[in-house]
Amino acid sequence: MKVTKKTKVIRSPKRGFYDKETIYKILDNHFICQIAFVYEGYPVIIPTIYGRDNNNLYIHGATVSRMLLELEKGVPLSINITQTDGIVLARSAFHHSLNYQSVTIFGEATLVTSENERYKALKIISDQIIPFRWEEVRLPSKKELKATKILKIPIVEASAKIRKEPPSDEKEDYNLSIWAGEIPITSTIQNPISDPKLKEGIPIPESVKKLMKKE
Amino acid sequence: MKVTKKTKVIRSPKRGFYDKETIYKILDNHFICQIAFVYEGYPVIIPTIYGRDNNNLYIHGATVSRMLLELEKGVPLSINITQTDGIVLARSAFHHSLNYQSVTIFGEATLVTSENERYKALKIISDQIIPFRWEEVRLPSKKELKATKILKIPIVEASAKIRKEPPSDEKEDYNLSIWAGEIPITSTIQNPISDPKLKEGIPIPESVKKLMKKE
Repeated sequence: MKVTKKTKVIRSPKRGFYDKETIYKILDNHFICQIAFVYEGYPVIIPTIYGRDNNNLYIHGATVSRMLLELEKGVPLSINITQTDGIVLARSAFHHSLNYQSVTIFGEATLVTSENERYKALKIISDQIIPFRWEEVRLPSKKELKATKILKIPIVEASAKIRKEPPSDEKEDYNLSIWAGEIPITSTIQNPISDPKLKEGIPIPESVKKLMKKE
Repeated sequence: MKVTKKTKVIRSPKRGFYDKETIYKILDNHFICQIAFVYEGYPVIIPTIYGRDNNNLYIHGATVSRMLLELEKGVPLSINITQTDGIVLARSAFHHSLNYQSVTIFGEATLVTSENERYKALKIISDQIIPFRWEEVRLPSKKELKATKILKIPIVEASAKIRKEPPSDEKEDYNLSIWAGEIPITSTIQNPISDPKLKEGIPIPESVKKLMKKE
């Protein structure tokens, strides 16, 4: 990925990554991003679901969504995804830190109009959240498709920032009798809870079993 | 909290909350937020650590941080914190959803200049991440304090949005033999990992033990 003025990691440059492999890996590990854009002069930030297909992100929502109505104009937007991997406890208050993996994208969205691509995009978003679920469900009706808007965001300007290391203290502090280390934080999937209105005798489906196994 | 044009939850209004208790509860359950602001005409979104004190958030960073240099001018900013609690699997693709708790704040920052308040703010941020750690560490030196900038953001315009319910399908779909329910997602603290450079014989401190117990 081309490094631009907007994507260049200035603070702690060694933590900046610009290769697609690193950026895609973080994107593929998540399905919620935060999107920022300017609306009536104010910065607005909204969490939304996405799906990645090659070098594009797809987002979707209601046809009447204010965010999508604004973004489809092609206004500049910024996306961030941040995964906290751990709290880094140093000997000094000053050197406390976090281990994390973060991706920031600058770009703009376009409205997807082709019915083929719209349908494909919905499957991509579904697969991003839980693979194989699309094959199990009642697929979108014409009415539901009509109520859904899909935007595509090419990943043109993007960078990743990663910290993954032990604490880094001042030389003289290593002699202090203060514990230092990392408290890892993980996101964990718990056992599925059936809908209270579920018909009797319907087993946990393959998509859910596979997601649980992946953890 | 006064409901404003910017904070009013339009889509699914029943999921919007404006009371301080709900907003503070979500804020206090986290320590990373995403801040958006406009920089040279572009929306920029940056994850950062915060600490809450009454109706203010404190953020901090390097004195030379571009984000803080911009925000201290008092430009409009927007903050979002989103916690994903579960994937909601409906019988229809269309009604798949997430359970989540989200807070959005609109406001502006001011530079904290009083040395007393600066020091207090650093402890508040530290306590937000891991309570009682401040009492264990080597506290900031004059040089470290000089390298640190602190901004205060009053929580003036804010709203929470919460979804916490089973799937909601079309009436006729409840008869389908398709599993529906929720896959809960939790953020979990793992066992602490000592710094490879830790002096021998230093036990896990109280702050870490308390954080583990809280989980």
